[in-house]
Amino acid sequence: MWNRYLEVRGLTESLCQPLAIEDYVIQTMPDVSPPKWHLAHTSWFFENFLLVPHLPAYQPFHPEFGYLFNSYYETVGSFHPRTHRGLLSRPTVEEVYDYRSHVNRFMGELVASVDAGQWHVIAPLITLGFHHEQQHQELLLTDIKHIFAMNPLRPAYRSADVANAEPIVPFQWLGYHGGIRQIGHNSDEFAFDNEMPRHRVYLENYRLAARLVTNGEYLEFIEAGGYGKAEYWLSAGWQAVQTQHWQTPLYWERHDGRWSLMTLSGMRELVTAEPVSHISYYEADAYARWAGKRLPTEAEWENAATQIPVAGNLLESGILHPTAITADACLPAQMFGDVWEWTQSPYTPYPGYQPGAGSLGEYNGKFMCNQMTLRGGSCVTSASHLRASYRNFFPPETRWQFSGLRLTEDA
Amino acid sequence: MWNRYLEVRGLTESLCQPLAIEDYVIQTMPDVSPPKWHLAHTSWFFENFLLVPHLPAYQPFHPEFGYLFNSYYETVGSFHPRTHRGLLSRPTVEEVYDYRSHVNRFMGELVASVDAGQWHVIAPLITLGFHHEQQHQELLLTDIKHIFAMNPLRPAYRSADVANAEPIVPFQWLGYHGGIRQIGHNSDEFAFDNEMPRHRVYLENYRLAARLVTNGEYLEFIEAGGYGKAEYWLSAGWQAVQTQHWQTPLYWERHDGRWSLMTLSGMRELVTAEPVSHISYYEADAYARWAGKRLPTEAEWENAATQIPVAGNLLESGILHPTAITADACLPAQMFGDVWEWTQSPYTPYPGYQPGAGSLGEYNGKFMCNQMTLRGGSCVTSASHLRASYRNFFPPETRWQFSGLRLTEDA
Amino acid sequence: MWNRYLEVRGLTESLCQPLAIEDYVIQTMPDVSPPKWHLAHTSWFFENFLLVPHLPAYQPFHPEFGYLFNSYYETVGSFHPRTHRGLLSRPTVEEVYDYRSHVNRFMGELVASVDAGQWHVIAPLITLGFHHEQQHQELLLTDIKHIFAMNPLRPAYRSADVANAEPIVPFQWLGYHGGIRQIGHNSDEFAFDNEMPRHRVYLENYRLAARLVTNGEYLEFIEAGGYGKAEYWLSAGWQAVQTQHWQTPLYWERHDGRWSLMTLSGMRELVTAEPVSHISYYEADAYARWAGKRLPTEAEWENAATQIPVAGNLLESGILHPTAITADACLPAQMFGDVWEWTQSPYTPYPGYQPGAGSLGEYNGKFMCNQMTLRGGSCVTSASHLRASYRNFFPPETRWQFSGLRLTEDA
Amino acid sequence: MWNRYLEVRGLTESLCQPLAIEDYVIQTMPDVSPPKWHLAHTSWFFENFLLVPHLPAYQPFHPEFGYLFNSYYETVGSFHPRTHRGLLSRPTVEEVYDYRSHVNRFMGELVASVDAGQWHVIAPLITLGFHHEQQHQELLLTDIKHIFAMNPLRPAYRSADVANAEPIVPFQWLGYHGGIRQIGHNSDEFAFDNEMPRHRVYLENYRLAARLVTNGEYLEFIEAGGYGKAEYWLSAGWQAVQTQHWQTPLYWERHDGRWSLMTLSGMRELVTAEPVSHISYYEADAYARWAGKRLPTEAEWENAATQIPVAGNLLESGILHPTAITADACLPAQMFGDVWEWTQSPYTPYPGYQPGAGSLGEYNGKFMCNQMTLRGGSCVTSASHLRASYRNFFPPETRWQFSGLRLTEDA
Repeated sequence: MWNRYLEVRGLTESLCQPLAIEDYVIQTMPDVSPPKWHLAHTSWFFENFLLVPHLPAYQPFHPEFGYLFNSYYETVGSFHPRTHRGLLSRPTVEEVYDYRSHVNRFMGELVASVDAGQWHVIAPLITLGFHHEQQHQELLLTDIKHIFAMNPLRPAYRSADVANAEPIVPFQWLGYHGGIRQIGHNSDEFAFDNEMPRHRVYLENYRLAARLVTNGEYLEFIEAGGYGKAEYWLSAGWQAVQTQHWQTPLYWERHDGRWSLMTLSGMRELVTAEPVSHISYYEADAYARWAGKRLPTEAEWENAATQIPVAGNLLESGILHPTAITADACLPAQMFGDVWEWTQSPYTPYPGYQPGAGSLGEYNGKFMCNQMTLRGGSCVTSASHLRASYRNFFPPETRWQFSGLRLTEDA
Repeated sequence: MWNRYLEVRGLTESLCQPLAIEDYVIQTMPDVSPPKWHLAHTSWFFENFLLVPHLPAYQPFHPEFGYLFNSYYETVGSFHPRTHRGLLSRPTVEEVYDYRSHVNRFMGELVASVDAGQWHVIAPLITLGFHHEQQHQELLLTDIKHIFAMNPLRPAYRSADVANAEPIVPFQWLGYHGGIRQIGHNSDEFAFDNEMPRHRVYLENYRLAARLVTNGEYLEFIEAGGYGKAEYWLSAGWQAVQTQHWQTPLYWERHDGRWSLMTLSGMRELVTAEPVSHISYYEADAYARWAGKRLPTEAEWENAATQIPVAGNLLESGILHPTAITADACLPAQMFGDVWEWTQSPYTPYPGYQPGAGSLGEYNGKFMCNQMTLRGGSCVTSASHLRASYRNFFPPETRWQFSGLRLTEDA
Repeated sequence: MWNRYLEVRGLTESLCQPLAIEDYVIQTMPDVSPPKWHLAHTSWFFENFLLVPHLPAYQPFHPEFGYLFNSYYETVGSFHPRTHRGLLSRPTVEEVYDYRSHVNRFMGELVASVDAGQWHVIAPLITLGFHHEQQHQELLLTDIKHIFAMNPLRPAYRSADVANAEPIVPFQWLGYHGGIRQIGHNSDEFAFDNEMPRHRVYLENYRLAARLVTNGEYLEFIEAGGYGKAEYWLSAGWQAVQTQHWQTPLYWERHDGRWSLMTLSGMRELVTAEPVSHISYYEADAYARWAGKRLPTEAEWENAATQIPVAGNLLESGILHPTAITADACLPAQMFGDVWEWTQSPYTPYPGYQPGAGSLGEYNGKFMCNQMTLRGGSCVTSASHLRASYRNFFPPETRWQFSGLRLTEDA
Repeated sequence: MWNRYLEVRGLTESLCQPLAIEDYVIQTMPDVSPPKWHLAHTSWFFENFLLVPHLPAYQPFHPEFGYLFNSYYETVGSFHPRTHRGLLSRPTVEEVYDYRSHVNRFMGELVASVDAGQWHVIAPLITLGFHHEQQHQELLLTDIKHIFAMNPLRPAYRSADVANAEPIVPFQWLGYHGGIRQIGHNSDEFAFDNEMPRHRVYLENYRLAARLVTNGEYLEFIEAGGYGKAEYWLSAGWQAVQTQHWQTPLYWERHDGRWSLMTLSGMRELVTAEPVSHISYYEADAYARWAGKRLPTEAEWENAATQIPVAGNLLESGILHPTAITADACLPAQMFGDVWEWTQSPYTPYPGYQPGAGSLGEYNGKFMCNQMTLRGGSCVTSASHLRASYRNFFPPETRWQFSGLRLTEDA
């Protein structure tokens, strides 16, 4: 457990290694948090939910940090408004790293000192802290990408890799039988409360695309005037297109007739075989309607995903960008990694869902409204963080995550 | 068919009978339309979808009315912004009534002149027009209520009836068995496309409250500080409470320690046995959580409702206000009428859903995002408009409709 | 006095004579008030400042009308928000006319009953009420124009008159000597407090254009790309151009290469010899800078205006639209009437200015910030309401008034 | 000239010496710029107006810096939106300092290489660059103060000095004679174009307070309920009070019945004898009205100020906070330094004003609308930057500058 702790906490810091101090501080839109905020908030999580209640005589590192680095736990106390996170030059980055060290030191003390009875209580909370921190590792990278993309200088998080223009692998459908199926988490392994309880659902027969929709396919939609035709769009999506002037996915640019897009390695020419990414639910849905197909439900997706191993272009690959499939890929390909796949399922509680007790009950349950479920992880998700039953969720207009789509149809 | 046409169209006009000309013109918030807009839009519906395509040589009443009275059909053409409906003093109310007469006259001509083959095409469109107009009859009354409630003079739509303070009937649960069930419309009768196709769902055992939650019960939630405790609320709901300063349902007021509320008969003292109304989804959900229960899914609701007749305090009762149940009521009571019941189901397409062809495909499908489903009709819904499979839908912050809740629990 | 009262009050009503009831009710932007509001507010003015304090035992017509029809007198009490004036269908137009009659009747009683001592106190208030009502007569017409212009049907307030395409009279400068001059009101006649005290100012020599800038001249500015070149604009004006997408004066439209504009007689072809109207201060200032000239100060304007009679195309002409000058016009022409002339003077208190005592001190003084002074009246100003010392004032972005400009230069 | 250049440029950097890198990056409201932006913009000013046009073969340091660090010169080219200045983590602080060094090096080359004829052209531009940079030195300090004040940790820019609780010196009036006076700049020394031409004005007799209004006096206004009584406020000011919930000057806080305020040395107890600061024009005007006095016009202020030397608590004192006057102060005291004094004069062009030619004509002239003039400099203004004719200007709601007031009355 302690090695795992050091590993997870250390990865957060090594992900920040390429940053200049200035990069840690700013917030380029309300959804983005400054990197130093992520560093501090994940430490606060351990401090508030482990050290304060369970380590006798522990003193918080700083009396104001509870206010500054609580994200949204109303029952813990008042907190600094989310939109104001970029207004804080202090604590400095160095002080935030000191905070991390402080928390790590006392977490070591806690782990070393508890007896078996306490361990029973504490171990699940520490595990939750790992998964919480892994979520913020993903956000760190998507937020850094946004911070760099909003800058006219278009800095790179790391040096550019070479774009491999793979030939596009022919499109295929995979068929699945319907009937009563079970979805949701049912092992002893960690899972979030929103993946439970495992429960029965009824599915009709359906077919899933064997791979993700590519940039090249999405470009056809653009060139067919898809962003200008209301008939493909949900009403709220059409409004977003018009008020936000969407003409392409986020991060796409056109110069002199050539498409390029922002990556964590800076601007790069668009590769048609790569999965389309940084699209909203509205765009995923409109593309599918234009293509005469639909998005999967999360039950359909999970039913297919439980049958294959959790493997793919995830954070561990180090690519940090969705990649094209190869001709010899196992099918269905790209179920895990590359991009989160929008499903047509609103994020709702499973039948019999019970949020955790106490403040940690605010972790997932209170967001079950006006958000859509995404499945499968992305190129910036840790493999150890992912499961077939994992439910990610964002409002339908969200674009700054690595989000794309897989087509589905009735069988 | 023609008698039915005259009946539906006539009812719209008789609902407006108590209005002064001034009442027809204003828009008190973006969701509200001026009454004369409803009168004109429902006529435009017949003109645009029946007369123009099907009556040879028909000339539209006015060249600009297509622009002014198209509600949201992007594929029909551009339209006057919804938020600007209250900026139009012209056409006058008299001209709008002339428009109605004109459309009625030519609809009569159309119905009289078509042959059997055409009838096949036209009859379903006319029926759709009836149901469309009935939806606007309900909106007319909720909009008039809002128009009068926003006015410090608090005018009454009609003279006050006496409030009957019924004793509150004891609370009871009714149990339902789970398993594979079918929901959705499956007869030859009219239904909207969003109620189809009929399809299988899997339900666990559950219990439904035998009646709606009352004003008195809701008042306990208020008095327990429910509007001030984040733990009962969805995150988006808590934000709505704070930014919109919600402390009670819409239309409730407190003067000198006594509660009263706005009705279509003006201000009236609160009757505790009456169903609570004019609450958002967030409030319904928070109340249920406070009560240790939950809202039903729409499948759970429909499964119960298909077993009983469509009857209750509907528009035909003429009361225009939700009423308390009587001791001898058949259970489950108040399933139809009184108030629309918020379900916990987001408004999504049924498996295999296909929107209608052409512009009428915009009727329902494009709104299937960020809205919640309500069931059962209200005291201002026509009985002939309602079915067990009927799906109403509004964004979760909506309060100006007659909307309340029924508790549910796992069995 | 009583005849004058009847005359002024009667004119307000006869100006409304062409309106349909619907036209009385709506508010097309925050600056516009519904016509029935003007009818009621001007009555409230007499009720609140004359009847309530000075007529023994007078009972206000309605207990809520003080709240509804107080415009902005904080010291009188709270009032209905300005932006909500269009949300009131009640009181009906008929009830508002009853209110007027009621106030008129009791004003008659008051005038008939007071003795000479009281008359001394009351007469100035009644006179103020006349001028107040005359200001609202002008607003009535500009507001009706806006209400009709925002309607895609472009209704006309009255039947169209024929556009006289006068030949443009050659441009001329008139010279004025500088030195110490006096401006401000100094007779026994009525004037607003903001025109006083009369005081000394120092003027350099200057020249005033003998007539207003015409539509044709302004069109040259447009065609020279004036709305696209930042160098002609104040910074705040340039921002207004960009955020509000100004390309022409308000009410101008171009169809098939021909210019037309909205008038109180409906849409009409643009007449180049007519004075340009419905421009903001920013546009007046930008035009003058483009032309290599400037706007006059209000002292320069008044110094010239005091030397000529108050006559011109005013409300009494019945034209309700600015007109071209004729070849035989006395110079300077168009000083009074046609359009209000933007000056380069911010609206500030004169040295020694004292607002009136009590609530009426709020009439003018509290608006002396962020507004610019306009001089000379317009085609919808009553002659009996105007003086050379009269100071009108509006924020610099205002366009719905009849506002234009006269060029000036240093001598 | 070169020594002066090094001195001015060096002061900017030494003012930044106490900052952490993080402090350089953020923007806490639209009016505030990140410190590194000031460092870069002042360098861009020399690069764009001196090096590019006048140093042959000069290459700009970076092709995007013209876009990033142009403040508002429309005629120079497009620029990064003011509100987005805090969204840029790059260029880093170090790169910005490199930019400064680069510009300094080539400025040295330019100064060393020009002949007498060129010098004639260049010297005034360099001098303008000095004064421009001095303005930004003042902004640097006011912006840093805001950045620290918005942070719940309330960091200090430098260590706290001791508050000297001076006894309050008795209030006195100083009389001035009216008549024709001249104001405006008229020497060979540098002045901004907006201080010219020198011109005649007519003044009535008046009296100026011998010192500024103090915190203690302002506190009486607060305790008399001044922020709650509309009668003291301009209409726009009253609206600001209500929508922005003003109850005190900016930076005042009350804890346990004791007043403290944010300073560049962190939070400090309020000292009643110190001049009130960080108030808007609306508050200055309301205070004066409450006190039965008024603000001076800028002509009245300048007429008094030209008679005394430019000396006081300015940047050079190193106090960076307004101080109380001493019993032996020369009167009028505090005319220069401590706080900028709001005048009742809107910021308008002097008669005969001509903005500079070319892009530098945008420096002052285009802001002459909706702003009020302030006079006399503050505790963060350089002595060498100030003159009796100096006109500062801000919108009336501005509070983050060191701004206060001096009472005036008619004689």
